[in-house]
Amino acid sequence: MTFSSRLSAAIRTKKTPVLVGVDPRFNMIPEYLRKGVDPKDLKGVAAVYRTFSLRLLDVIAQHVACIKPQLAFFEAVGPRGMDALADVIAYAHQLGLIVILDGKRNDIGSTAEGYAAAYLGENSAWGGDALTVSPYLGEDSVQPFVNVAEKNDAGIFVLVKTSNPGGGMLQDLVADGKTIYQHTADWVEKTAKTFAEAQGEKYGAVGAVVGATYPDQLAELRQRMPHAWLLVPGFGAQGGTAEGVKPAFDSEGLGAIINNSRGIIFAHTRKDYAGRFTDTQWEEAVETAVLEMKAQLNS
Amino acid sequence: MTFSSRLSAAIRTKKTPVLVGVDPRFNMIPEYLRKGVDPKDLKGVAAVYRTFSLRLLDVIAQHVACIKPQLAFFEAVGPRGMDALADVIAYAHQLGLIVILDGKRNDIGSTAEGYAAAYLGENSAWGGDALTVSPYLGEDSVQPFVNVAEKNDAGIFVLVKTSNPGGGMLQDLVADGKTIYQHTADWVEKTAKTFAEAQGEKYGAVGAVVGATYPDQLAELRQRMPHAWLLVPGFGAQGGTAEGVKPAFDSEGLGAIINNSRGIIFAHTRKDYAGRFTDTQWEEAVETAVLEMKAQLNS
Repeated sequence: MTFSSRLSAAIRTKKTPVLVGVDPRFNMIPEYLRKGVDPKDLKGVAAVYRTFSLRLLDVIAQHVACIKPQLAFFEAVGPRGMDALADVIAYAHQLGLIVILDGKRNDIGSTAEGYAAAYLGENSAWGGDALTVSPYLGEDSVQPFVNVAEKNDAGIFVLVKTSNPGGGMLQDLVADGKTIYQHTADWVEKTAKTFAEAQGEKYGAVGAVVGATYPDQLAELRQRMPHAWLLVPGFGAQGGTAEGVKPAFDSEGLGAIINNSRGIIFAHTRKDYAGRFTDTQWEEAVETAVLEMKAQLNS
Repeated sequence: MTFSSRLSAAIRTKKTPVLVGVDPRFNMIPEYLRKGVDPKDLKGVAAVYRTFSLRLLDVIAQHVACIKPQLAFFEAVGPRGMDALADVIAYAHQLGLIVILDGKRNDIGSTAEGYAAAYLGENSAWGGDALTVSPYLGEDSVQPFVNVAEKNDAGIFVLVKTSNPGGGMLQDLVADGKTIYQHTADWVEKTAKTFAEAQGEKYGAVGAVVGATYPDQLAELRQRMPHAWLLVPGFGAQGGTAEGVKPAFDSEGLGAIINNSRGIIFAHTRKDYAGRFTDTQWEEAVETAVLEMKAQLNS
């Protein structure tokens, strides 16, 4: 089954487009889980990340359709961190979760094929269902990812308009009457449309990352890329709201997944939850935050 | 000692700006080194990559100053590939080589810090001397890499103008009277200059990736970024020549490193070497190719 069909089905089953970011940060992990571990002991830190992430999956798997491990945090711990990542992906699949790897990879043609073969599809080394991809190197650097995604029933999400304040440095520049992010969006739409039509589906295997911090652009980009899934980061901690992400969805409530990382996985540290959860009740805090975000988005 | 000083000193000692790309590709590795290993056996492939890469380093270490492992090929083999990468980096350092990790990483602020902390500097998990970075997410996504590089005496190379044919899709668009790659170049120069002046050095910790396949732009970008080291890919297999890369250097022959990957590490398969080296003589082929490239660049 194509990535798009699987994603739609999973969202319908779990009744939510919430995408939980799995971003282990040592200092934010509940203290009792990292007690006695020196932050410079990479093997120890990797073990903490593994435990924390697997327990997190146990809490959220029944409530959401998909997760987004941020590769940077696992890479930060070295080879043992990569072992932990492999375990997280495998366990997520056991629990029936769709795994979108946030690596923002890109390179020239034959090397891009290497990345795509590494991360995308059941028979790849890492077995991701999808991967985020950066477009600076141009179309012949993204096409290999598209090809592998289509072949392996996986997906990619190309960075279009990111949620950070400095994203505009290149993305908002105007060339030939269009911003750079619109140029990228048009390439994504063209590629997604070709795939969607060939499969007789509404959306293609190629989606776009569009930040929740710019609601107007979210609406504009939904219209501009009718065949692309939108991965929307920036909800919660970065300021995105349920009202703001509404334009990302189609009339059936599909077409977008809304990411929240810190606001869910480290919910026990949220200011608006102050006094509600102790350190050891972090899993209850996670569950509360997920259910709250589901309710917000469904209202 | 700063990255720039170490790089200058190493280039002077080895009398060459040749940067050898360590890009293990299973099907191009001499057959006797991969005999009996199933390409789908990731543990087996990782062991082959490790053996091949370490023997490669034994051959080139006396001749060149720096290497550039391409992370994609190690990641493609999964966690055991990352172990092989860690071994390659450690062994290269034992041999006194400078290690530039080609990962083209990037993300928003706090995650970019994660990548930077992972890859840059002696005390990082991977211990790279430098890392390649993609600029699509803008200045606040690159600055964390700059900060860590400066703190840890490491360097970064920002993608400015890449060597692939499709690189122009975004890079060559013109906004506010400048191409996108010029916008990126101006940011790199500004950042490199600040660092160089603070250190009283000619070049900063922030360099630029500029493809050898566009000699005119190489000359233009050398002028535009007088404080930035240039990492020049595209020599050899992709069509770049010694004549074409000349404009990348300053009057002392410094300021640029010229990458060659396949043309050196898989020299035994080069058409212009046909009949000269058997499969088991691949190390002689590597040495021949390195010395030839050194001579070409020094003439």
